[in-house]
Amino acid sequence: MHKKDLVYYGLTLILLLTSFTAKASSDPLPSWNEGTVKQSIIQFVHNTTDKNSTHYVAPENRIATIDNDGTMWVEYPMYTQVIFAFARVVALAPQHPEWKTQQPFAAVLAKQYDTLTGPEFEKILAATQSGMSVENFKALAQQWLAIAKDPRFHQHYTQLVYVPMLEMINYLRQNNFKVYIVSGGGQDFMRAFTQKTFQLSPEQIIGSAAKTRYSYQDGRADLIKIPQLLLVDDKDGKPEAIYFFIGKKPIIAIGNSEGDRQMLEWTQSNPEEHLMLLVHHDDAVREYAYDTKSKVGTFPTSLMNEAKEQHWLVISMKKDWKKIFSF
Amino acid sequence: MHKKDLVYYGLTLILLLTSFTAKASSDPLPSWNEGTVKQSIIQFVHNTTDKNSTHYVAPENRIATIDNDGTMWVEYPMYTQVIFAFARVVALAPQHPEWKTQQPFAAVLAKQYDTLTGPEFEKILAATQSGMSVENFKALAQQWLAIAKDPRFHQHYTQLVYVPMLEMINYLRQNNFKVYIVSGGGQDFMRAFTQKTFQLSPEQIIGSAAKTRYSYQDGRADLIKIPQLLLVDDKDGKPEAIYFFIGKKPIIAIGNSEGDRQMLEWTQSNPEEHLMLLVHHDDAVREYAYDTKSKVGTFPTSLMNEAKEQHWLVISMKKDWKKIFSF
Repeated sequence: MHKKDLVYYGLTLILLLTSFTAKASSDPLPSWNEGTVKQSIIQFVHNTTDKNSTHYVAPENRIATIDNDGTMWVEYPMYTQVIFAFARVVALAPQHPEWKTQQPFAAVLAKQYDTLTGPEFEKILAATQSGMSVENFKALAQQWLAIAKDPRFHQHYTQLVYVPMLEMINYLRQNNFKVYIVSGGGQDFMRAFTQKTFQLSPEQIIGSAAKTRYSYQDGRADLIKIPQLLLVDDKDGKPEAIYFFIGKKPIIAIGNSEGDRQMLEWTQSNPEEHLMLLVHHDDAVREYAYDTKSKVGTFPTSLMNEAKEQHWLVISMKKDWKKIFSF
Repeated sequence: MHKKDLVYYGLTLILLLTSFTAKASSDPLPSWNEGTVKQSIIQFVHNTTDKNSTHYVAPENRIATIDNDGTMWVEYPMYTQVIFAFARVVALAPQHPEWKTQQPFAAVLAKQYDTLTGPEFEKILAATQSGMSVENFKALAQQWLAIAKDPRFHQHYTQLVYVPMLEMINYLRQNNFKVYIVSGGGQDFMRAFTQKTFQLSPEQIIGSAAKTRYSYQDGRADLIKIPQLLLVDDKDGKPEAIYFFIGKKPIIAIGNSEGDRQMLEWTQSNPEEHLMLLVHHDDAVREYAYDTKSKVGTFPTSLMNEAKEQHWLVISMKKDWKKIFSF
């Protein structure tokens, strides 16, 4: 027998046994209730990965883009990143006695968050999240995430990740999808926890970003965060950022709000088989229920109508998810 | 025999045969002459991939960033992308009779390239490479690359790739490095050929980029190229872009000019084992010889001095490369 043949038989043996083992291990989405949504996801993955299917998609084109806030973890009543920004104001306040009377800092210190405008929030970001090296920022975010807890669930924020969505990422990855997080949230903030929490490496995390400035002082090269926007990864900005980073159109896109509409529409224009999903926050008991009136994750009637017309799948957290959190 | 054992024996068989085959196929860089440079590269790859080495680097941190123009392919006497831009002016001229007298177009049509300024070149890019969908741009670039030939070598531009550098990419990839192209050149232009020519997928190509605008017309989602700069991936912009896209510091960086200095310095600040290389164009017979006086790929004395001081490896195309092109 030739060496080549031996390799061939060895490989065949492994493939046969692996496929046998794979069939034995049953449900890829155990935290999902049976129903149209779960069935459609499994059918889609089957169709796009089965070489004999007319909907087969080559592995290099199996791009999945998933929103973060409200899709992967809790975003209500405030985005975690905003809570972090306010915590930075509190932490830095002793060095800035003038903040006691100076807006927008005084409002944050008095916990009057509702009065803050967009430009005021940008001022807070500029004052608390720039002028430091990218490594220092990462360390600050990680230190905060390791300590801070959500007031309702009494859990660390990284515990407020949806188990069904972690299963989804895992399931897609096992089927040779390349999974990206595509979020309006800050790229640097997400990258501080997504490796550990989602097992996704930094280049798979796309988010809004400020510029950095390269500096070389005392023989040390460093990147310093500066308060200038480079990319707003929301609404129109999502397909634009996906094209910029990945250069390919996704075949699966998952979001939960108005900010994800364009990402789903763009995915729908993919000539390859494609799937669009929206997470609907309709479970006030186990998580939250909010639609149009919320300050975060707005899900207007027009989006629900587009979902219906375009056959996007709407995931009901209440009905489709057997379990939401790991705790 | 248990199923598990069968898998184990199958795998062992394959590993043994593969390693036997690997040892038989000896030189990973056959187009490189023996010498310090080649030896240092092989030693570096060995040290960073050998688990028993004190310089071992985990696969997820084996990031390699490589410049394109002048490092991967010929950039002299004009960047290929600039030649393409001029060709677009010629192609569109019949639709723009006013260009015969209107600058900077008249200069291009008269082949008076030397008089063009940076802002004038931007005007040319705006007039010829925006207002179209990203797919249309890609098609135009690919059509041109399939036809246009270099006047000295009489080869398609994608044939002007350096074989030793293709071997380098392949060698790094085989050792589980993730290879990125990081270039001052246009990201969209590079992505039109790098999949086929370098076997690198679009997300591994980082370059200067214009913004796109998401539009949704007649039920079709599209991204239109617009004449606004998003990112200049040159000099300081290189480490900034690497951080933005990859979120990790490279352990190997290869460039050929002043525009790569900061990328190499930043790589040098990596606490992991690292290697910095510069391609030196010193072979007027087989390619070109140029240093400080050139309009492209400037390699000033100060860069050569920094290379010496910092022990960056300087690749002499004349001495270190046995073969330059595949033709």
